[in-house]
Amino acid sequence: MERKKNISMAVIKRLPKYYRYLNELAKNDVDRISSKELSEKIGFTASQIRQDLNCFGDFGQQGYGYNVKELLYQIAGILGLNKEYSTIIVGAGNIGQAIANYTKFERMSFNLKGIFDINVKLIGLKIRDIEIQDIDNLEEFIRENKVDIVILCVPKNRAQGVTDLVTKNGVKGIWNFAPVDLKVPNDVIVENVHLSESLMTLSYLLNEQELD
Amino acid sequence: MERKKNISMAVIKRLPKYYRYLNELAKNDVDRISSKELSEKIGFTASQIRQDLNCFGDFGQQGYGYNVKELLYQIAGILGLNKEYSTIIVGAGNIGQAIANYTKFERMSFNLKGIFDINVKLIGLKIRDIEIQDIDNLEEFIRENKVDIVILCVPKNRAQGVTDLVTKNGVKGIWNFAPVDLKVPNDVIVENVHLSESLMTLSYLLNEQELD
Repeated sequence: MERKKNISMAVIKRLPKYYRYLNELAKNDVDRISSKELSEKIGFTASQIRQDLNCFGDFGQQGYGYNVKELLYQIAGILGLNKEYSTIIVGAGNIGQAIANYTKFERMSFNLKGIFDINVKLIGLKIRDIEIQDIDNLEEFIRENKVDIVILCVPKNRAQGVTDLVTKNGVKGIWNFAPVDLKVPNDVIVENVHLSESLMTLSYLLNEQELD
Repeated sequence: MERKKNISMAVIKRLPKYYRYLNELAKNDVDRISSKELSEKIGFTASQIRQDLNCFGDFGQQGYGYNVKELLYQIAGILGLNKEYSTIIVGAGNIGQAIANYTKFERMSFNLKGIFDINVKLIGLKIRDIEIQDIDNLEEFIRENKVDIVILCVPKNRAQGVTDLVTKNGVKGIWNFAPVDLKVPNDVIVENVHLSESLMTLSYLLNEQELD
């Protein structure tokens, strides 16, 4: 599979949406779909779709369209979903617990291997058979186990410290729910979920509409 | 306060970040800051910052910089954070419960007024003094109470149905955690938090890095 270099974040951010729609189509036993039909479902223009997918290879066929399962398989590969990822959750508060309970991520091959917290009331409790460990064990755990992704759910004043610790010990991926921008080495990927900022965007748009 | 029309989503999405950084500065009793200093903290260029803020009015002063608390106050206003929003949560599963427990949103003036679920095991339980109600009460509740924002945490196959019900009864804002794209009337704002898509983006970037 060819892949162009320097694919824009805008294209990358659209890929999971292609994956989601194609997954639905495959589940409904749709065999093939034209870029026009896909466009009507997904809401991007047909030319946008062709352009996006061309970044990753030569999918689809003039007059036939896309083979749904083949394209789904390819996009899963592009997204790295054909691999297994070991994840741990640091911070077992509200969001940490919610993520820990979310089995959907396992089905996507993100396997939860550990949960860590500082709170003695939580340490020793189990979520889905995984015991919440003392955060003091975190460094040793990462050294002894392959951890691909740290799901960071600690308060903002703890987030950078945990980040420094885990990246120093070789973690390359951080899914960050703390409302801060983390400083990381160049080879570490951070994906932020800033819930407050999302809510503020909603508030802005509601407010703007009232002014119209 | 002047405000230009047709402000791009890119600018809008940066506003909460300005708010977050200015809030930190204000808490630390910083009185004023130049666009250059703010640039070093926030990671946007100084010219980007000046351009962004110019969309909303004439802030800052040549040679003086920005008055932090004044700018914070203005941005809070632009974001609509000087208003009170009534919210309800529909779907009291993992994410719904986590959001319900998150008091930070209250401090931002999003006030949780109700929680609804279909699950008889959850109905009647309380989260922070708010009783989880039967979803059958949802329509009546919205008719009798002002609800600005519905926080939608139901499974994907229920999301459009709930959306139709609440928008039909006048709700104008939906904070959507269900992994679907909702169809709504033109005057309804949807802000999506698609956790799986965020995780897939992280997976893509990790995978891409390995290929380099």
